[in-house]
Amino acid sequence: MIGIFDSGIGGLTTVRALMDVLPGHDLIYFGDTARTPYGSKSRETVIRYAIENTEFLLEHGAKVIVMACNTASSVATEVLMEKYHVPVFEVITPAVERAVNQSPRAQIGVIGTRGTINSGIYERLIKEKIPTANVFSSPCPLLVPLVEEGWFDRPETRMIVKKYLHPLKIRQVDSLILGCTHYPLLKDIIQKKIGKNVKVIDSSVAVAEKISRFFADHPDMDQLIEKNGKADLFVSDITEQFEKTASTILKKKVFLNRV
Amino acid sequence: MIGIFDSGIGGLTTVRALMDVLPGHDLIYFGDTARTPYGSKSRETVIRYAIENTEFLLEHGAKVIVMACNTASSVATEVLMEKYHVPVFEVITPAVERAVNQSPRAQIGVIGTRGTINSGIYERLIKEKIPTANVFSSPCPLLVPLVEEGWFDRPETRMIVKKYLHPLKIRQVDSLILGCTHYPLLKDIIQKKIGKNVKVIDSSVAVAEKISRFFADHPDMDQLIEKNGKADLFVSDITEQFEKTASTILKKKVFLNRV
Repeated sequence: MIGIFDSGIGGLTTVRALMDVLPGHDLIYFGDTARTPYGSKSRETVIRYAIENTEFLLEHGAKVIVMACNTASSVATEVLMEKYHVPVFEVITPAVERAVNQSPRAQIGVIGTRGTINSGIYERLIKEKIPTANVFSSPCPLLVPLVEEGWFDRPETRMIVKKYLHPLKIRQVDSLILGCTHYPLLKDIIQKKIGKNVKVIDSSVAVAEKISRFFADHPDMDQLIEKNGKADLFVSDITEQFEKTASTILKKKVFLNRV
Repeated sequence: MIGIFDSGIGGLTTVRALMDVLPGHDLIYFGDTARTPYGSKSRETVIRYAIENTEFLLEHGAKVIVMACNTASSVATEVLMEKYHVPVFEVITPAVERAVNQSPRAQIGVIGTRGTINSGIYERLIKEKIPTANVFSSPCPLLVPLVEEGWFDRPETRMIVKKYLHPLKIRQVDSLILGCTHYPLLKDIIQKKIGKNVKVIDSSVAVAEKISRFFADHPDMDQLIEKNGKADLFVSDITEQFEKTASTILKKKVFLNRV
């Protein structure tokens, strides 16, 4: 199975994107809803959680690991790659590659949680590819709770998105990376507030396409993944609101298993 | 020492209130910032966390336990009282007593996290005292992240508070219970939006006064508490933002210890 984890249910946007590009591949998802969110927590704590989540997925038969969580991707990638002998995918590099290709003036905006933005990882990876690039970042800590509440298109949400995007809009960025797996659910508002000429980069779609290419290039790995179109969804805590938001993201009624 | 715990740093409003009424008594605080917030998590998970937090405080010398967290108070009080042989205080009963005394028409509003409101505990306790009371509740899940961001007086915060309070305002409540330890930090906005004739009940102040009366009535217990005016603050995770908000609440520069 392809193992995917996130701090909560936002990572299901990556599951959704994987189902689109690899509809047959079996998936196992772990959302750490008992300790969500990671975005405001420290580096050491997030690394510890990422290790525990990975072990859960490996014990349940995962052959590759996808960190569908920008905060974990920004701090735990190297630790996981060193510790485990399976392919580990993170959501940052694929979005960076896409943004770099779609930014002719190399003016790139990034939004994410405070943890992700403070790590400086997007800026570092973008500048490795284009040393002269200008990267403008804005932490948006309230967007995750707004999404989890299902406030996708409320006036308050529009006002908060506008405030967060203002510093990037005046910089006239070419592209804007959605550096958090919850943000694709606000993509319409974000596109509207940043302006229609800005390419909005969805990291869930970017990582799903990268994984699809990986399996095409590595048929031996592809063979390890059973293909019954199954998706097992596990969470560390369950509430009605979690199931509601999960169903919204996957666009069908889903049931979560608590572990 | 008096042991106080909360899901995060919001419970420091209770520490602040205790320092005002019992300035000499030594305090130990544990904020479970690595797993914050509790408000959106399930009953079983919150009970488990409450037990772990209580054991931490007892191991560090606490002689009484204060749950400065409405979500924990609403689901874990009986479990803790049965399990441990020390006085356990919760933040709900003191606020209910105060609201009942200050509501001549017995029209009472309650705001809190989704977990607290869904538990129905405020309504149950109010109706035990006044069976004919009308209790109007509104879950306000976005207020905790707004406070943790330090957005105490922004237009977005005012707009969201207004929306949440609207159903209570049209009911013309006599009093409004702030059923979450974070909300006292928004008290000015809340008072303005609900109307100046409504008594706004701060559960932090209510529980601190109850504890003060308890020690006056139980000098044997009072003797167990050392009185050096010390306050040891522990958290399960630490970030710059947590220390900033903690300092705002306690109105002085504070340092948190990570455990």
